[in-house]
Order: sequence, then structure tokens, then C-alpha cells
Amino acid sequence: MSTNGVEEVFLFDPQLLEDLPFEDQKCATYKPEIGPTRPGDGLTLRPLCVSDFDKGYLTLLTHLTKVGDISREQFEERFQAMVRTQPNLYYTVVIEDDVTHQVVGSATLVKEMHFIRQCASRGRIEDVVVNSTYQGKQLGKLLVDVLTLLSKKVGCYKVSLECLDNMVPFYSKFGYVKEEGQNYMCRRYVPK
Amino acid sequence: MSTNGVEEVFLFDPQLLEDLPFEDQKCATYKPEIGPTRPGDGLTLRPLCVSDFDKGYLTLLTHLTKVGDISREQFEERFQAMVRTQPNLYYTVVIEDDVTHQVVGSATLVKEMHFIRQCASRGRIEDVVVNSTYQGKQLGKLLVDVLTLLSKKVGCYKVSLECLDNMVPFYSKFGYVKEEGQNYMCRRYVPK
Ligand SMILES: CC(C)(COP(=O)(O)OP(=O)(O)OC[C@H]1O[C@@H](n2cnc3c(N)ncnc32)[C@H](O)[C@@H]1OP(=O)(O)O)[C@@H](O)C(=O)NCCC(=O)NCCS
Ligand SMILES: CC(C)(COP(=O)(O)OP(=O)(O)OC[C@H]1O[C@@H](n2cnc3c(N)ncnc32)[C@H](O)[C@@H]1OP(=O)(O)O)[C@@H](O)C(=O)NCCC(=O)NCCS
Repeated sequence: MSTNGVEEVFLFDPQLLEDLPFEDQKCATYKPEIGPTRPGDGLTLRPLCVSDFDKGYLTLLTHLTKVGDISREQFEERFQAMVRTQPNLYYTVVIEDDVTHQVVGSATLVKEMHFIRQCASRGRIEDVVVNSTYQGKQLGKLLVDVLTLLSKKVGCYKVSLECLDNMVPFYSKFGYVKEEGQNYMCRRYVPK
Repeated sequence: MSTNGVEEVFLFDPQLLEDLPFEDQKCATYKPEIGPTRPGDGLTLRPLCVSDFDKGYLTLLTHLTKVGDISREQFEERFQAMVRTQPNLYYTVVIEDDVTHQVVGSATLVKEMHFIRQCASRGRIEDVVVNSTYQGKQLGKLLVDVLTLLSKKVGCYKVSLECLDNMVPFYSKFGYVKEEGQNYMCRRYVPK
């Protein structure tokens, strides 16, 4: 993708999103029909780019949790560290409003390498967020559906996430289940 | 470390383990006292090495879950992919019996990069296992204590894990808590 003649650096290959078997394998129902290549009028779904620093990506994340003061240099450094992982382990998808050039939704799939199960990889879905003005337009569903399909495409044998009680019904739409007897435990070094 | 004159490749810098403030900050109680530099008579704690392929590392993992048939080439390929991540993201610790030259315990810390919280990283503890003959010798406690301290040392703002109901009391020893209202959800592409 080229914006104003400047070549964009994507976090991961955008072709991966175009190749998803979305129509056949999506989990949620969409009315009207939308998809990764047509997320809605005036909207574009694509991998995160360095230029999203200027498109409100970090402000969007503040709706999720603390973000803090991140300089462009720090942003680029982290972005490049994510790009450098080979095999690619970080898949952040954003939805941009083509008129305001603001990022209005985002979610991340992280791949994790193991030795168990024939050197398997597993996926984790993290940091799912939609700008409040754009909520209820099926974008949250689209982000989770897309990343779940992507987790399978990039070879994960399972994909998991952590969420609050009130989000359990939302994620159930996409085949996520609370497995009997499984617990999530956490130790924090800084307060929530 | 040099074994038979052949230079060993470690998954991560062994100095990290030596530098842990284990005596001051360990969580479990140990009788007799052991630690990362003295895990017990005839035992050594260190980062995973490529040569652990020949020391029963994969057999040890079968006590945890399916491992499958992994060739030396596949093992090395995955090992090298983990080494190549920069910043280092994979920290697998093993305990070797110096007499039998077998790996008798292991656990992995995976670091995950985020943009939230000032480009923070979080940790995940995975694949904790001790050979049944060596259970009850405080090695499981040592592995979890060491990786929890390591997660802080390598800059994680939190560290988490998933476990079965019967393991909740075990992990509670190290400051892990089930947070109110938090759920772990999973979607599998292959059966358990
Ligand atoms: C959660 C969030 C991403 C949803 O995004 P959204 O774009 O508003 O959601 P969508 O329009 O795609 O989907 C809404 C659908 O999910 C349902 N839904 C939304 N929140 C839900 C919830 N908590 N429980 C059950 N269903 C829910 C809606 O009823 C709707 O269902 P429908 O398709 O049957 O009509 C968004 O509300 C958000 O960013 N919230 C703040 C951050 C957050 O909580 N992130 C999740 C962290 S785990
Ligand atoms: C779990 C496991 C790693 C523990 O290793 P270990 O070396 O036998 O354990 P240790 O000797 O270090 O520690 C035992 C301590 O934990 C306690 N403990 C062990 N299992 C426990 C459990 N399920 N619940 C509560 N406490 C437990 C013991 O009572 C003992 O406590 P103490 O220090 O007060 O005496 C080992 O049993 C194992 O490999 N099990 C199979 C694989 C597995 O289940 N892994 C965990 C996946 S989440």
C-alpha cells in the first residue's frame, strides 16, 4: 500500500487478510454483510502500520487500559521488534476511517511457539477495542472473527483469550469456550 | 558452558539466572534450602540447550501433553526460531541430572510485547513439568519461583498462567491469584 507516494510498512503481510476463507468460515452473523475486504462504508481493515502512530492508534488503546506517553521513536522501536520476529508472531489488525484517517478499531493476535504437539504454535487474542462512536457497527465481531480465522491460517492448534464476565457471551459467538476446571491466574508487579 | 569441548548454545543468557535475587525475593519455602545455582545434589538448573534433544527433554514433555514425533532437525529449527526473537521472548529453564545426563524438570516463560502501558511486556508461564521420579524434591517450586522472578527481571509488568483446579493452591504460593470476574476462554482446532 502506498500513501502519498510513501511506501507503508505493515506489521504483517496484508495478503494474509485477503486470503482468509471469511465467507465460508466466519462465526458471527452480519446484517448488513461485511467482511475483511469490505468492513463497511468508508472503512478499511488492514495490518497495523508505523503511520498509525499519527492516526490515533494509541488514543484508541486508552479506551482499553493505561497507555502512557509513548514517543514516535518508542512506537517505531516496538513496531520493528514485532516485525523482526521470524516466524512472524504479531498480527495487529486495525480498521481505519478513510475520511478522518483515524484508527477506529483494533485487535491483536499473538502467536506463541512451543515444542509440545509437534512443535506447535498457539494463538492469543489481545487488546480488542472499538472507538465508542463506532461501536454497534459489527466491527468488534469482524475483528474477532478475522483474527480467529487468521490464527488457524497461520497454523495455531488453539487460540485463547482472557475476558471479563460480561464479555463471555460475546466471545462465545466465535467458538471460544470456558473449559471445565481451567483457571487463569495472574501476578501483577504494578497496580491495575 | 562447554561440554566435551563443544560450545553449547543456550536459549537465553545463563547469566540471567545467576543474577536473580532469589534469596531475597523467592516466594516458596524450601527445606532443605535450594536455589537456581544449587537446585539439589547432582542437579543443574540452566537454560534449554540444543543438546537437550539428546537428554530426554521431549520425553519429559510427554508427561504434560502430546509431543509427537519431532526430528532433531525440527527441534533445532524451533529452537533457533526462539533464539532469533529480539528482544528475547522465550525462556525455557531445565533441570539436568548430572549423573544420568537426563532433563528431569522444565518450565517456560514467554514474554509478549504490547503497546499498552508504555510499550509494556507481559509474561506467561507454560509447560511446567517434573519427571515423576523427581517429584516432591522441591523442583516444581524452584522452577516456578525462578521463572516468576525472571519475568520481573526481564521487565514484565505482569505474569500469568493457566492451570487446572487442583493446581490453584500450588501457584498461589508464588503470588498468582484468580482475579474476580476474569475468564479464560479457548477455541481448539484439534482435540485435546
Ligand atoms: C467489545 C467491543 C470490542 C465490541 O465492539 P462493537 O463493534 O461494539 O461490537 P459489534 O457491533 O461488532 O458486535 C456487537 C454484537 O455483540 C454483542 N455484544 C456486544 N457486547 C456484548 C457483550 N458484552 N456480551 C454479549 N454480546 C455482546 C451485541 O449484542 C451484538 O450482537 P449481534 O451481532 O447479535 O447484534 C467494544 O464494545 C469495545 O471496544 N469495548 C471496550 C473495550 C473492551 O471491553 N474490549 C474487550 C476486552 S476483552
Ligand atoms: C506440578 C509439578 C510440576 C510439581 O512438581 P514437584 O517437583 O513435584 O513439586 P515440589 O516438590 O516442588 O513442590 C511440592 C509443593 O507443592 C505442593 N503441591 C504439589 N502439587 C500441589 C497441588 N496440586 N496443589 C497444592 N500444592 C501442591 C506440595 O504439597 C509441596 O508443598 P510444600 O512445599 O509445602 O511441601 C509436578 O507434579 C508435575 O510435573 N506434574 C505433572 C505436570 C503438571 O501437572 N504440570 C502443571 C501444569 S499447570
